[in-house]
Amino acid sequence: MTAGSTFGNLFRITTWGESHGEALGVVIDGCPAGLTLDAADIQLYLDRRKPGQSRYTTQRKESDEVKILSGVFEGRTTGTPISLLVPNTSQRSADYDEIASYYRPGHADYTYDQKYGFRDYRGGGRSSGRETIGRVAAGAVALKILSELGIQVTAYTYSIGPVTIDESHFSKEAILSTPTAMPDLEAGGRAEQYLKECMNMQDSSGGSIRCRITGLPAGIGEPVFCKLDAVLANALMSIGAVKAVEIGDGVHVSSAKGSENNDAFISTEHGTQKASNHAGGILGGISDGSDVVLTVHIKPTPSISRKQQTVRSDGTPISVSVKGRHDPIIVPRAVVVVEAMCALSVLDLMLANLSAKMDYLRLIYPAHHDSH
Amino acid sequence: MTAGSTFGNLFRITTWGESHGEALGVVIDGCPAGLTLDAADIQLYLDRRKPGQSRYTTQRKESDEVKILSGVFEGRTTGTPISLLVPNTSQRSADYDEIASYYRPGHADYTYDQKYGFRDYRGGGRSSGRETIGRVAAGAVALKILSELGIQVTAYTYSIGPVTIDESHFSKEAILSTPTAMPDLEAGGRAEQYLKECMNMQDSSGGSIRCRITGLPAGIGEPVFCKLDAVLANALMSIGAVKAVEIGDGVHVSSAKGSENNDAFISTEHGTQKASNHAGGILGGISDGSDVVLTVHIKPTPSISRKQQTVRSDGTPISVSVKGRHDPIIVPRAVVVVEAMCALSVLDLMLANLSAKMDYLRLIYPAHHDSH
Amino acid sequence: MTAGSTFGNLFRITTWGESHGEALGVVIDGCPAGLTLDAADIQLYLDRRKPGQSRYTTQRKESDEVKILSGVFEGRTTGTPISLLVPNTSQRSADYDEIASYYRPGHADYTYDQKYGFRDYRGGGRSSGRETIGRVAAGAVALKILSELGIQVTAYTYSIGPVTIDESHFSKEAILSTPTAMPDLEAGGRAEQYLKECMNMQDSSGGSIRCRITGLPAGIGEPVFCKLDAVLANALMSIGAVKAVEIGDGVHVSSAKGSENNDAFISTEHGTQKASNHAGGILGGISDGSDVVLTVHIKPTPSISRKQQTVRSDGTPISVSVKGRHDPIIVPRAVVVVEAMCALSVLDLMLANLSAKMDYLRLIYPAHHDSH
Amino acid sequence: MTAGSTFGNLFRITTWGESHGEALGVVIDGCPAGLTLDAADIQLYLDRRKPGQSRYTTQRKESDEVKILSGVFEGRTTGTPISLLVPNTSQRSADYDEIASYYRPGHADYTYDQKYGFRDYRGGGRSSGRETIGRVAAGAVALKILSELGIQVTAYTYSIGPVTIDESHFSKEAILSTPTAMPDLEAGGRAEQYLKECMNMQDSSGGSIRCRITGLPAGIGEPVFCKLDAVLANALMSIGAVKAVEIGDGVHVSSAKGSENNDAFISTEHGTQKASNHAGGILGGISDGSDVVLTVHIKPTPSISRKQQTVRSDGTPISVSVKGRHDPIIVPRAVVVVEAMCALSVLDLMLANLSAKMDYLRLIYPAHHDSH
Repeated sequence: MTAGSTFGNLFRITTWGESHGEALGVVIDGCPAGLTLDAADIQLYLDRRKPGQSRYTTQRKESDEVKILSGVFEGRTTGTPISLLVPNTSQRSADYDEIASYYRPGHADYTYDQKYGFRDYRGGGRSSGRETIGRVAAGAVALKILSELGIQVTAYTYSIGPVTIDESHFSKEAILSTPTAMPDLEAGGRAEQYLKECMNMQDSSGGSIRCRITGLPAGIGEPVFCKLDAVLANALMSIGAVKAVEIGDGVHVSSAKGSENNDAFISTEHGTQKASNHAGGILGGISDGSDVVLTVHIKPTPSISRKQQTVRSDGTPISVSVKGRHDPIIVPRAVVVVEAMCALSVLDLMLANLSAKMDYLRLIYPAHHDSH
Repeated sequence: MTAGSTFGNLFRITTWGESHGEALGVVIDGCPAGLTLDAADIQLYLDRRKPGQSRYTTQRKESDEVKILSGVFEGRTTGTPISLLVPNTSQRSADYDEIASYYRPGHADYTYDQKYGFRDYRGGGRSSGRETIGRVAAGAVALKILSELGIQVTAYTYSIGPVTIDESHFSKEAILSTPTAMPDLEAGGRAEQYLKECMNMQDSSGGSIRCRITGLPAGIGEPVFCKLDAVLANALMSIGAVKAVEIGDGVHVSSAKGSENNDAFISTEHGTQKASNHAGGILGGISDGSDVVLTVHIKPTPSISRKQQTVRSDGTPISVSVKGRHDPIIVPRAVVVVEAMCALSVLDLMLANLSAKMDYLRLIYPAHHDSH
Repeated sequence: MTAGSTFGNLFRITTWGESHGEALGVVIDGCPAGLTLDAADIQLYLDRRKPGQSRYTTQRKESDEVKILSGVFEGRTTGTPISLLVPNTSQRSADYDEIASYYRPGHADYTYDQKYGFRDYRGGGRSSGRETIGRVAAGAVALKILSELGIQVTAYTYSIGPVTIDESHFSKEAILSTPTAMPDLEAGGRAEQYLKECMNMQDSSGGSIRCRITGLPAGIGEPVFCKLDAVLANALMSIGAVKAVEIGDGVHVSSAKGSENNDAFISTEHGTQKASNHAGGILGGISDGSDVVLTVHIKPTPSISRKQQTVRSDGTPISVSVKGRHDPIIVPRAVVVVEAMCALSVLDLMLANLSAKMDYLRLIYPAHHDSH
Repeated sequence: MTAGSTFGNLFRITTWGESHGEALGVVIDGCPAGLTLDAADIQLYLDRRKPGQSRYTTQRKESDEVKILSGVFEGRTTGTPISLLVPNTSQRSADYDEIASYYRPGHADYTYDQKYGFRDYRGGGRSSGRETIGRVAAGAVALKILSELGIQVTAYTYSIGPVTIDESHFSKEAILSTPTAMPDLEAGGRAEQYLKECMNMQDSSGGSIRCRITGLPAGIGEPVFCKLDAVLANALMSIGAVKAVEIGDGVHVSSAKGSENNDAFISTEHGTQKASNHAGGILGGISDGSDVVLTVHIKPTPSISRKQQTVRSDGTPISVSVKGRHDPIIVPRAVVVVEAMCALSVLDLMLANLSAKMDYLRLIYPAHHDSH
């Protein structure tokens, strides 16, 4: 939707807030009534993205405590907008005066200036990673609904720099308990070593995140422009620093043959299923009952202490070293953001799918012939 | 937007039509008035995707001639909806009876059945590649507007199976004159050889397409969910068979370091520019004045003559060989579809950007104080 | 939605076409799959608005035959876009050259010129009453769905000039069988007499239409901006020439007291009902189970043979008599348009309402816990 | 838009909050950057709707102080979402236990229960008049932008019960300085007398509001469904208690003749103008350069102390007298809400109109041919 801070059609969220404003938040419109919900359901997810939890994340102190301001009554959603707010408690603007004068490489300073004529330069303003607080808070609500319908969304770090996990070592616990959010403890160890090297070199590292959606019924997604994969691609590419989105085999399909890429259908005790899942659970833009599997690639943190060339807003060249303690990698804290965006995408399309068949209408609205 | 056949907010297109229906088409709502337009402007692009042009495309005979039914008067757009229609002339349904009974691997037969309860099984119905006719027809109009504003969109085949082009051999003419749509004649030759091998093996090949947008001013794209890259990812992933979208360095960012990935800003006679373009022309979701560069990966044609395992709709296993002459590769005909979707995305965001600044409003609506 | 030719969110229609173009039509996106539908279902309603059926309608010869170009397979809707097309067969542009030069009073000639810089002057172009063909064709589909769910929409002429019907004389048959579309034969006779007088005076008459929606379950409509009455007001005011929309007691509420205007709730064998219906079936923007009742007021046909003062586009004053045979009243042919717009509004909100409760989701998506 | 708490496409607002929740608010997305804005600009309008200002408004004590939480930096809008919040300070829920058990006549208690399965019964929850706080806060921003473009929106009480103003007595000052918001002091006096009588009879009164928009350029509004009048009708009918919307001559057009209703065009020193304004400044859904004039009719306050019949949620009949001190009339406090909704409608369509012509695009995006 135009202006860009709204996502979704039926479960529709509007996020707001800047890195160094008074607060950030999100309004959810279209949450079905009757869901049990309290702040702890949401806090659980916000805590996974909050800073200061490991040596690889910024030391900014933010408790990121969420308040529910509307839309919940006596512990249940009412069907009206849910307004969620997270105060900024640690915004120190003093040291941003210098940043105001030049364009940081890899950041949105220059493009915001070009678009709007000026910018809120404090900590990246609206282009800060703190913008994802609203996504995660709303995603937590979507994840709770999906969970009630038997659908789970699990994201994890797939690679950091040259270190890639081995899926056969998969440990779900490791995702939440390690600073890398890798589900493979051995790879996680090597990744930490690599990150330390990057930090020593005043540099940062890229990485990738994989997400798996299980329990999703076949039939979700709309033909043509609102394909399930197209909506997911939109959702995921909208996360700052994501530069590629892959569904199923992703970039590898371009070097594959049809006989390798097609998944055979087979008949099982659970009905029709696929014998393999190169498609990543989506055929013709619609879920096929297999797990939805996708991967996103995230660029290295652009703020590095190393000297870089850039210009001031008046065009003067300048050599800068971005000060402060920055995350040497974005990936681990983005894992929960990926889960949130996947949940929001899938739930929105599940709601849209309620209009797919006359049979659903006849079920919800049995014709009633009494006049009154 | 829900239901899925509409793309864009301000330059908004709605496509319709099935592979074997009477016609396919598109309605463009929101095309600015005063654009010179006739059918030939559109036919030029449709001819690039029509079948039967080489040994690597289906031999179905379709002239794909477009008619403008509304929205153009005396050779200029009026600002009201432009309805474009392309008749289907070669729909033979006779041989589709068998396809009706089973689910083709890699196709949307199964998922449409799951979603809607039944499907138009003739030639894939709405999930056919012919659906892209509406996209290309509308995209032609968008491309014409962009061109008047000094913006060019150029897509080309980047790889076919194991064969990748060498950008230093780039020849724009080769894109339109060769059956592979590769801009590198030497690579194109090798790719043709590879396709022949695939055909001999009753198999098909995947490939990738790169697109470059030049002349786009800095400042286009909205923060957060409607980032330029997010809108492009949505648009491109919505093209059937696309399984990955990369912006700039794409999947390579996950193994890069910040010092490698950041683009320095420099001061030139044309103003502030970037010294490199790892970012693919987009920072913080907003165009930065460099070329926008992206790559999409397209799976191999799922219809292959080789025997494959699948099931009938009643669950009975069956071994099938998809009959008929099918394209051994989707990529060359998808090149113009990629151009179309990029143009539609960029133009829509350029229109949204007209609301970005008070200065634009003051320019278009100078305050008038006369009362009457 | 911007650009203005799309209505609805879930059952979404996009109309296109000008009075003197090649054709007019509509694309319906979001029609649930599995509805039995053929052209005759739609033609029934188009025939009610086509010209030349009485002495009070223009004698332009148009059969207004609809073709279904997509979205229906083997007699049932497939869930994909339904494209409906009605050719213009009687467009004579010869006599429009003069109209091109001046602004007809009461028409949109001047405003289109101001908005777009020029206009399709043939027969009003897009601002012609023929634009409603798309509304009626799409509305016919919505009406069929509503009918299957036990909901009826009935509009009729409520007044013509000074002649108002007596609801106690209500005859549903008379609506379709008389040239006035009044359900009161006696009032209809007086109205015809009045129209003849207007015609003799080279003048035209305004009138009003009432619509009643029966069988609508309680609970339809969204709080705040998408109230059922707000959506209806939008839909109805968007019909050319409508200048007022009333819900229930309408303008009379402003002179009423609370004790007169409130409807008591009572307990009946059919459950809770209202003892009266001043509210017109809507409380807080949501249907209350009573009939929805509304009234629209339609201005007199602006094209009259009487001399009128106006200006040419260059500002020169001119006295004009709009030539040709015009309807002396818009109302009777607009009755079916009101039905169509009401049906589109109600159906769209019924689809939106499918997301209102967790209970509906649990019904359509029973959690399935088998992994595969 | 679905779910109903969002209004507008380009200047898009999302309101949230219940009568007795912690706070109410609104998020504005799409406000152009560079507008000077502080809380006082908004407070000015909120103060006009806050309670306790006269004997005719509820004595609930609310200061309704607005905070700007995002989107404004160094006194100017940044182009990113503006989050506005108003805390509820006087929510006493104690006395709502009884209301929870039955359906108040004329209120949304019954319909919310039918839609959502349960409701926030405290003070009407989301259906409370306090919901309009978000509209007024956002409207204040729209009004400021319009004012900078030379456009003024002025609403006032047109009638209360049987008392109608005389436009020839118009005093703009009286609107803000009297408890009736009537611009005619003499009529205002009689209206106050009438309200006292209603209060004595434990009853309430309806009334109407007129609004005039001056300085709006010709050409604003979209054809077909997003006509200026259709958008205004939607906006105004969405205000709780509004039961009719009239544009220009409104309901009177149905008894008028064409020769009476058409406005002649004339040539003046300011260009083409209309000699009269029966059309209310809108032709074919597009502004014609005359003042836009409209009238809304508002039902009497449904909460009255008089005994009324109703039922409990279990169906038991009950006779109730709605306790507490209620406004005997809604109209005076709704005047500023009408201004807000008109401003939001007009501004949104002015932004949409920026895409109307190629000339506007060429002005904002002069083609630039330098490659880089």
